[in-house]
Amino acid sequence: MSSIQESEVVVLGWWVSMFTARVRIALAEKGISYEYIEEDFPENKSPLLLNHNPVYKKVPVLVHKGKPICESLIIIQYIDETWKEGYSLLLSDPYLKSQAAFWADYIDRHIYEGLKIIITSKGEEMKKVVEKFLGYLKVLERELGEKPYFNGESFGFVDIALISYYSHIIADGTLGNFSIEKHCPKLHVWATQCMKRESVWKTLADPNKIYESLVAYRKKIGVDE
Amino acid sequence: MSSIQESEVVVLGWWVSMFTARVRIALAEKGISYEYIEEDFPENKSPLLLNHNPVYKKVPVLVHKGKPICESLIIIQYIDETWKEGYSLLLSDPYLKSQAAFWADYIDRHIYEGLKIIITSKGEEMKKVVEKFLGYLKVLERELGEKPYFNGESFGFVDIALISYYSHIIADGTLGNFSIEKHCPKLHVWATQCMKRESVWKTLADPNKIYESLVAYRKKIGVDE
Repeated sequence: MSSIQESEVVVLGWWVSMFTARVRIALAEKGISYEYIEEDFPENKSPLLLNHNPVYKKVPVLVHKGKPICESLIIIQYIDETWKEGYSLLLSDPYLKSQAAFWADYIDRHIYEGLKIIITSKGEEMKKVVEKFLGYLKVLERELGEKPYFNGESFGFVDIALISYYSHIIADGTLGNFSIEKHCPKLHVWATQCMKRESVWKTLADPNKIYESLVAYRKKIGVDE
Repeated sequence: MSSIQESEVVVLGWWVSMFTARVRIALAEKGISYEYIEEDFPENKSPLLLNHNPVYKKVPVLVHKGKPICESLIIIQYIDETWKEGYSLLLSDPYLKSQAAFWADYIDRHIYEGLKIIITSKGEEMKKVVEKFLGYLKVLERELGEKPYFNGESFGFVDIALISYYSHIIADGTLGNFSIEKHCPKLHVWATQCMKRESVWKTLADPNKIYESLVAYRKKIGVDE
């Protein structure tokens, strides 16, 4: 492993983390090469992680010229504003930008929390939490409407925010017996389009591996035998 | 009350809401005149509010030329980017901007949640939650350091994000027997400076009134007799 001082752009991440995936997708879309350091998370956080994110001690952290930036949505904005040449991930119109920020925040409030609750549920409770989760996805599907991407004609901020959850949604769907394909057909078409992008398919974790990790986690915390 | 169509800039708000205060402070700092509509919140939300924030049905909403923008931090950014002339609330350097976004998010995670928990606590539990809350304030105090404002030399985004809680912190301090002055002297100096700004002192609710509303709320939910 090369020292962090040698690299201009470094990502501290964890393969399971959808937030890490966001940062890697954004960097790939902008064509920025970087050093990736996989953390042994959450058990054995490296001194590098603890030093660079002393407040939350979480991945991902983008380290650019030695300076750390934390929190995935903030990192995407930083990437877009720092490397301005080429493709823009954020829209420049203040109103459209405010709407994108609103929906990215919605995704982290409801999709993240929804997936977390599904992981620890079973039986009748599982059915209820899945129903609620699908409700949130349907709100997002309405917002997508007939557009190819949440950003409009091109893949951008909100698309990255949501597609980063895709492997987890598939894995949770196996646990909870639901699928985007069946319940949210327009989101399914959107996700299929996103998955054709090299930045996305090369970055997202294998849903089967995520599923295995969830099964192991459920056993560990006693939800399943 | 004039119709919303007649005004270019309208704020739907509630006097108790620190998030509403943020929007009003930002508009005042930028010198933008607007129509303010006080909601009978949360009991009797107006059709205007329900139509303009159908997802969360919460204040504040900024309506600009008929288009609604929701979520206070997103609204401040919208205001700063839409009315570019004069004073900037957000820093233009991407790194400094990312740090401001990080701390504004920290404030909403910890200060909001901390105040909420204090409101419903008493006895030994109150002591514990106050201790934890003061810990969060001290992290912010360290971040402020020797700077006059979180933004640096001038009042800006993070300052607005935090000072909007000031009346609530004073009111919760009366409930929980703590004060910024005693526990966070540098934050106290900062808050005193912020309170000299017309945008702030004209906007923030009277802490005594907030305190009265908290006392009434505690009786209503059975925390106090």
